Amino acid sequence: MIERGPDVSFANCGLPYFIGGEIADRSALSVQTPQTLKAMLNLDVRTRTEAVAIDRPGKRVRVRGGSPGSEEWIAYDKLVLAPGAVPIRPPLPGIGSPRIHTLRNLQDMDRIKAAAVAAEQVVVIGGGFIGVEMAEQLVRLEKKVALVEMLDQVIPPMDASMTVLVEDELRQGGVDLILGDGVVAFEDGGKTICSLRSGRKVEADLVVLAIGVRPDTALARDAGLLLDPRGYIRVDGHMRTSDPDIYAAGDAVLVSDYVSGDPCTVALGGPANRQGRAAATHIFRPDLAREMPGAIGTAIVRAFNATAGLTGWSEKRLRAAGRSYRSTTVNDKHHAGYFPAAQPLMLKLLWDPATGRVLGAQVTGLDGVDKRLDVLATAIAGGLTIDRLAQLELAYAPPFGSAKDIVNLAGMSACNARDGLVDPAGELPGDPTVQIVDVRPQGHAKAHPFPAGGRAVVNIPLDVLRSRLGELDRSRPVVAVCALGKNSYFAARILAQNGFSVQSLSGGLRASLDRTCSTW
Amino acid sequence: MIERGPDVSFANCGLPYFIGGEIADRSALSVQTPQTLKAMLNLDVRTRTEAVAIDRPGKRVRVRGGSPGSEEWIAYDKLVLAPGAVPIRPPLPGIGSPRIHTLRNLQDMDRIKAAAVAAEQVVVIGGGFIGVEMAEQLVRLEKKVALVEMLDQVIPPMDASMTVLVEDELRQGGVDLILGDGVVAFEDGGKTICSLRSGRKVEADLVVLAIGVRPDTALARDAGLLLDPRGYIRVDGHMRTSDPDIYAAGDAVLVSDYVSGDPCTVALGGPANRQGRAAATHIFRPDLAREMPGAIGTAIVRAFNATAGLTGWSEKRLRAAGRSYRSTTVNDKHHAGYFPAAQPLMLKLLWDPATGRVLGAQVTGLDGVDKRLDVLATAIAGGLTIDRLAQLELAYAPPFGSAKDIVNLAGMSACNARDGLVDPAGELPGDPTVQIVDVRPQGHAKAHPFPAGGRAVVNIPLDVLRSRLGELDRSRPVVAVCALGKNSYFAARILAQNGFSVQSLSGGLRASLDRTCSTW
Repeated sequence: MIERGPDVSFANCGLPYFIGGEIADRSALSVQTPQTLKAMLNLDVRTRTEAVAIDRPGKRVRVRGGSPGSEEWIAYDKLVLAPGAVPIRPPLPGIGSPRIHTLRNLQDMDRIKAAAVAAEQVVVIGGGFIGVEMAEQLVRLEKKVALVEMLDQVIPPMDASMTVLVEDELRQGGVDLILGDGVVAFEDGGKTICSLRSGRKVEADLVVLAIGVRPDTALARDAGLLLDPRGYIRVDGHMRTSDPDIYAAGDAVLVSDYVSGDPCTVALGGPANRQGRAAATHIFRPDLAREMPGAIGTAIVRAFNATAGLTGWSEKRLRAAGRSYRSTTVNDKHHAGYFPAAQPLMLKLLWDPATGRVLGAQVTGLDGVDKRLDVLATAIAGGLTIDRLAQLELAYAPPFGSAKDIVNLAGMSACNARDGLVDPAGELPGDPTVQIVDVRPQGHAKAHPFPAGGRAVVNIPLDVLRSRLGELDRSRPVVAVCALGKNSYFAARILAQNGFSVQSLSGGLRASLDRTCSTW
Repeated sequence: MIERGPDVSFANCGLPYFIGGEIADRSALSVQTPQTLKAMLNLDVRTRTEAVAIDRPGKRVRVRGGSPGSEEWIAYDKLVLAPGAVPIRPPLPGIGSPRIHTLRNLQDMDRIKAAAVAAEQVVVIGGGFIGVEMAEQLVRLEKKVALVEMLDQVIPPMDASMTVLVEDELRQGGVDLILGDGVVAFEDGGKTICSLRSGRKVEADLVVLAIGVRPDTALARDAGLLLDPRGYIRVDGHMRTSDPDIYAAGDAVLVSDYVSGDPCTVALGGPANRQGRAAATHIFRPDLAREMPGAIGTAIVRAFNATAGLTGWSEKRLRAAGRSYRSTTVNDKHHAGYFPAAQPLMLKLLWDPATGRVLGAQVTGLDGVDKRLDVLATAIAGGLTIDRLAQLELAYAPPFGSAKDIVNLAGMSACNARDGLVDPAGELPGDPTVQIVDVRPQGHAKAHPFPAGGRAVVNIPLDVLRSRLGELDRSRPVVAVCALGKNSYFAARILAQNGFSVQSLSGGLRASLDRTCSTW
């Protein structure tokens, strides 16, 4: 095992948490060491040793290291490449400043942690998973933190309505969240001035750049292995590259997507781990090897008290790919509402209108988000339909769940839409002739008026709707709205049974894109 | 809607938690009231009204109630029976004592809560889900609690090795846990004396009987509907009884088992809820109705800090039914070990050796038990195999999971067994010629000797095993043992590669049935 750096098998997902001090013990990040790998698996591990060339016809690798300046050839029968990915450093003016850091390994971590000691102001660039984790951890160190993200939301793989809670939590945690803006230049002085596209300037003693990665595949390219245009290594279902004696695994490879079968990349620890296992099995016991299934790409992030994550495809990705889909958003508590400390959860389900199969899901809330994502990732892996989601027998006792879990609710709600029991609206209809009926109790409707962009909203609470149908114009379509999307469903059923053309706003006010209304 | 009692749609799973005060607000237990059902769904709810007879040819139900003593016939097009189940009161001497309570509804709850105020000593009879919850909640009220269970374990549906943690927690919580014993008589005096089969006598100011339920189906039987010998109502996949105009749902019906297709009963809120939905759909929109899938029977219980639960079939049930199965037990932390507060989890997987499909699973631990049960329930619903479990893409960030979640590990471990990479032993082989090799570090092995029933145990730590193979007799089989079942797997691989006939003890010391060794 040839490793350029000093460490093997370190817990790179833990790096932000050591910087913030939530993980106190640095040695805990070294999941394995050369010594433990020798003792347990009899591996010959060579750290601080770089593979600089592959001689494919000769089946040998040239390595540099060990004693300084020394190089040697090492023969192989089979070779596995696990080079990983490098944080992107865009060629912006001033990018070379020593105050600008990226985070890939324990040494980067140590440098950022050291720089943070004296820093007062920190700018994190990139609102993805790592950027959000870094922002949270730097607040934990009592730094003044700005988080700059080019898109109008954090966690770009998710749909914007499902990241609102994380954004609120970041702001409430003290992060200066700058969305829809990007850095165009850095200028060093007493501080580093980050100039943004908007013209705004943000001062920093420390800049953490977390805008993504590119595969670290110069060695593979030089060896003539087949790469995609972005430099990812092409592999088959057994992790074999275009050379059948060379395998590759981890962040540097191109895998196939579970939903579409198209090539995709997943820079996550879980898949990397299993790819390594798949390569090893095919090398040593090809008789036992099974092709890797396509990648689903489940991911999760914590931001202070909030959690958000996704599995499978998002709505924006489905739309961009031109795939047909339907979307269902539901709200519920994370366990029985009558049991103390029930916390709100929001779940967005994407499903195939032709087959009912789950294509993707996103969940956000304060507690129990990971559980629902895992259930939905398993549902996607099993090809489950919305009907089967509705029927899942999930563990229920008051501290743990509900008789109808939010995953069941999502399935039931999607079935209702599929069966034509309700016509769900993803957003307020643009047609100005549509009557907007807010069916929340009068007090709620007055205290938090439904944000209808200046259009008229009639408040008829659900429990009196049957007796007040006369206040609505039967010749005009209606959209029923409420806080969570449940009472508006009941209202839509009543209205439909009474001859109205009616939609129900899916997910209610909470799923509305209007960020002023995200109060839980 | 005809209801004999004063309440509709109360949260019966919450009753123990109100008795113990963990749920403080009694009104929270009334999920719906006649008033809310009228307002929302326009239902005509009649409480304190009992259905006393069904005239099937005349399609009408005789009800008693409303004004005292009055009876009337109510006509139906379709009738739904949801009578539930009654706690069993066995005909033991002294069973009529007013100190002996069962728990079915809010009135029972109020009576037990009132009786608990003055009670010093409480005996809970029955170590199932309700019994364990009651014991925990009565400790919360600072009562002296004894829990009596006829079997040698609590939570009878689970396998005994998977309930050890709950039993330890009950004992540590102060519960006098009396296993393998049953009450044969009660005798009233200043206290109620519970006489046990063993001859032991336990005093109680309050007895809570929680030994199971029987279906409350006299009405259905008198109407000539088809019941099973135990009195459960037979229904089809649309919840129709033997009379196509009469449906039934909930604890009183016989459903079909998902794994075997055989009739079974599931007295749980989730399935009951969905059965009601299925019946309603078939009544009003038979064009949209789909048959209910078979029941999996996921269940969970909390006991102080511990949680345990199961989904699908247990090993004892598979064995009793004579089905072929294999069992795999793994241990891991509930999230990344390097992140603070990682807690141990143990997972037992039952799978079909012919197809690799998951047949059942049990999980126990301190945190994250519900998540794994839900993933495994979803896996069973999707017909997933051990290979697919190994490949599940579950949500991983350090606070939430691991790159290889324990569910993945269970799949990998089962695949290893299926593929012949390891020969797992469910328990220590009885053959006295088998060499027992404890591969834990010397310190652990000395501090907590492996309980081998007096047989010789050789301690050769994994990291020196390769150099100490000479200490073992190649002509005799070996079983490798360790704390969790992971290092014994590595040891077994090393030994097998060196020509030994070897097994690895699945799940390690922690999964051992020896209750003295359950320290986490």
